[in-house]
Amino acid sequence: MSQFWSKRTQALSPYVPGEQPKDTRYIKLNTNENPYPPSATVQQAIQAASGDALRLYPDPNADELKQAIANYYHVDRQNIFVGNGSDEVLAHAFVALLKHDKPLLYPDISYSFYPVYSKLFGINEKQIPLDNNFAINIDDYQQDNGGIIFPNPNAPTGKAISLITIEKLVEQHPHSVIAIDEAYVDFGAESAIPLTKKYDNLLVIQTFSKSRSLAGLRVGFAIGSAVLIEGLERVKNSFNSYPLGREAIAGATASINDSESFETSRQKIIESRTWTDEQLTNLGFVILPSQANFIFAKPPTGYTADILYQQLKERNILVRYFNSARIDEYLRITIGTQEEMQALVTTLTDIFEQITYL
Amino acid sequence: MSQFWSKRTQALSPYVPGEQPKDTRYIKLNTNENPYPPSATVQQAIQAASGDALRLYPDPNADELKQAIANYYHVDRQNIFVGNGSDEVLAHAFVALLKHDKPLLYPDISYSFYPVYSKLFGINEKQIPLDNNFAINIDDYQQDNGGIIFPNPNAPTGKAISLITIEKLVEQHPHSVIAIDEAYVDFGAESAIPLTKKYDNLLVIQTFSKSRSLAGLRVGFAIGSAVLIEGLERVKNSFNSYPLGREAIAGATASINDSESFETSRQKIIESRTWTDEQLTNLGFVILPSQANFIFAKPPTGYTADILYQQLKERNILVRYFNSARIDEYLRITIGTQEEMQALVTTLTDIFEQITYL
Repeated sequence: MSQFWSKRTQALSPYVPGEQPKDTRYIKLNTNENPYPPSATVQQAIQAASGDALRLYPDPNADELKQAIANYYHVDRQNIFVGNGSDEVLAHAFVALLKHDKPLLYPDISYSFYPVYSKLFGINEKQIPLDNNFAINIDDYQQDNGGIIFPNPNAPTGKAISLITIEKLVEQHPHSVIAIDEAYVDFGAESAIPLTKKYDNLLVIQTFSKSRSLAGLRVGFAIGSAVLIEGLERVKNSFNSYPLGREAIAGATASINDSESFETSRQKIIESRTWTDEQLTNLGFVILPSQANFIFAKPPTGYTADILYQQLKERNILVRYFNSARIDEYLRITIGTQEEMQALVTTLTDIFEQITYL
Repeated sequence: MSQFWSKRTQALSPYVPGEQPKDTRYIKLNTNENPYPPSATVQQAIQAASGDALRLYPDPNADELKQAIANYYHVDRQNIFVGNGSDEVLAHAFVALLKHDKPLLYPDISYSFYPVYSKLFGINEKQIPLDNNFAINIDDYQQDNGGIIFPNPNAPTGKAISLITIEKLVEQHPHSVIAIDEAYVDFGAESAIPLTKKYDNLLVIQTFSKSRSLAGLRVGFAIGSAVLIEGLERVKNSFNSYPLGREAIAGATASINDSESFETSRQKIIESRTWTDEQLTNLGFVILPSQANFIFAKPPTGYTADILYQQLKERNILVRYFNSARIDEYLRITIGTQEEMQALVTTLTDIFEQITYL
C-alpha cells in the first residue's frame, strides 16, 4: 500500500499469475491453450510485416484485419472492433457499454475477470447464481439491470446455452447491452454473431487465442451494431489509439484468411474431448457436458480435486483447480492432443490403482 | 449518442486519427516516426518467436524484456513496467498513480492525450500555462497537487528542461508522483532514469516507438521505485494481464540488446535537426530550441502556418499543424532523413520564391 496509489488501486488485489512453467516437461492442460499450431501463413505474414516498416505506426483502425473478419462472418467492417486480446476488448466493453447506474448482471461461476473489471472501473454489479446443474437460467436475469454478460460456453463449466435462448434474453432486455463472450464457441456451441444484425443491443466477443492457436499474439474482437462499436471505439481511442501492432494485424489477418488449420484443429479437439469424456466417465468422474476446449470434471468418490490436481502435477501433468465455493470439487482439464489425453487417462488410471492397492 | 453508452463514454469526443496516408508518395514529417529502420536483429527475433509457440500465452510479466531494459539502464527488473506502447503505460499511470482528490498538474501546451485520459478516467486536472518562451517553469507548479506530468523534451515544442530542474521539482513534491514522459529524450535531452534510484515518487516513461524505430511494434515502458511499479502492475493486471505478445517481447528485447542502429540513427537525426534549424532560420523561420526528433517552427512574416501546411501538402510533404490557441502560428516538423530535410528546404524555398514573384 502506498500514498502514491489512487484509492481504486489501493482497493485492487495483487494478481497471482497462472502457472506458466518455463520448462517443457509438463503436459500443460491448465490454461486452455490450443495444442495445435496456428496456420503456417501466420508466420510468413508476421515476417513480412516486421521489417523496416516497423518504424511506422500501424493503422490505428486495423482496417485490413477488420475487413478480413467482416468477410469471414458476413458483417460490415463498421460492425467490428479489435483489441489487444479479448481481455482488452472486454475491459473496453465494461467501461463503454456495461457501466450504468443499474447493476451489471453476470453468473457467480464465470470468467474470473468480470469481478476484477467491475472493481477496477467502479461498476455496480450483481452476481446471479448458476442453477444446481451449473447452468445459466435466463429467467434468473429477469430483473432491472444495466447490462448482462456471460461466456457461452461458460467457463469453467464448458456448458453452452442455445441460440434460441440467447435470442430470447436479448429480446427480454432491449434497453440493456447483452454481451456474449464467445472465447470457446468454435469448439461446438452456436455463435450469436448472426443475431447482431437483428438486435442493436447484442455484443459478441471472440478471440484468436483459442480456436485459432494465437494466444501468444494477443488479438481479440467484438461484433455488434454500429452504435455499440462506436462506443467501444471512443473509449479505445481515449486509452490507446494504436493497440494492435503491425505484426499482430498481419498475423491475425493471415489466420482468418486461412481457415484450414483452424477447421482441422477444432475438429481434432472436439474428437479428443468426446474420447476423454468417455474415458474419464469410465474411471468414475462426473463430467459436465462441454462445448469448449476443456472439460469440468468431478473426481470419483474418495478422491478430492485438490489432491488429484497435486498428484497429476507430481506426474508432470498440469490441470486447473479452483479453490472457490461450489467449484472446489472439480478440475478443469484443457483438451490437448490425443496423445496428451491418452497420457492423462493412463496417469489417472495409475494413480487410482496405486491408491486402491495401498 | 446512445442509451447503451455509459455516461463517461457519452462525454468523450470521437477520435480523429492523424493523417496516415496509405500511399507512399508523401514525405512524412508529421507523426515523429524515425526515418531509419530498427535493428536488423528485431526481425530475426520476431521470426523466431512467431512460429508454433504463438499458440501459447506469452509471459504475463515479460521478464525477458524487463531484464534487458534493466541491464541497459542499470536498474532492477522490479523497477520496470512494460506496456503496449507508452500510451498504454501512460493510461495505467493516470489510473494507478495520478488520480487523486487534488488536481493533476500538466502544461497547457503538451501531449494531447493528457486531457483525454483525464476525461476518460474522471481525473481532477489543472493545466499550467507554459511561460512566454514556451518553457515549463517549475515555480508555476508550486501549488497543492495530486501529481504532475509533462514530457521532457516537451511536445510539440521540443524544449527540454535540465536534470537539475527535474530533481528540484521531485524534491519540492515528495508526496506527489512526478511523471516524466521521455518519449523524445534520446534525441538530446537528459534522462531522469538515474534519479529514480534516489526518489520513490519519480516515474519515467519511455517508448520504443521513436529512437528505436519500433512505432509499429507497440512497446513502451516505465522506470520507477518498486512501489510505483507495483501500483502500475495492479492496474495492468486488472485490465489485461497479457498486454505484450510473444513477438513484441522478442522484438523489443532484440532492439534494446543491439544499440548500434539506435546510436547511429539518433546521431543522424540530431545532425539533420541542426542542419534543418540553420536552413529554416536562414529562410526566416523562428525555431524553438529542440532536443527532440522534431522542430517547432514559426514561418517568416507574411506566411501563416496553416497555409504553409497546405502548400507543403500539395507538394507531397506532410508536416503537422495544430489549430489550437497559442500554437497555431507554428508547424511541427519531424526530422526525417537528410535527403528528406533537403527536399523540405528546397520546397520551402520554391514556395517562398513563387509567392514573392506573384
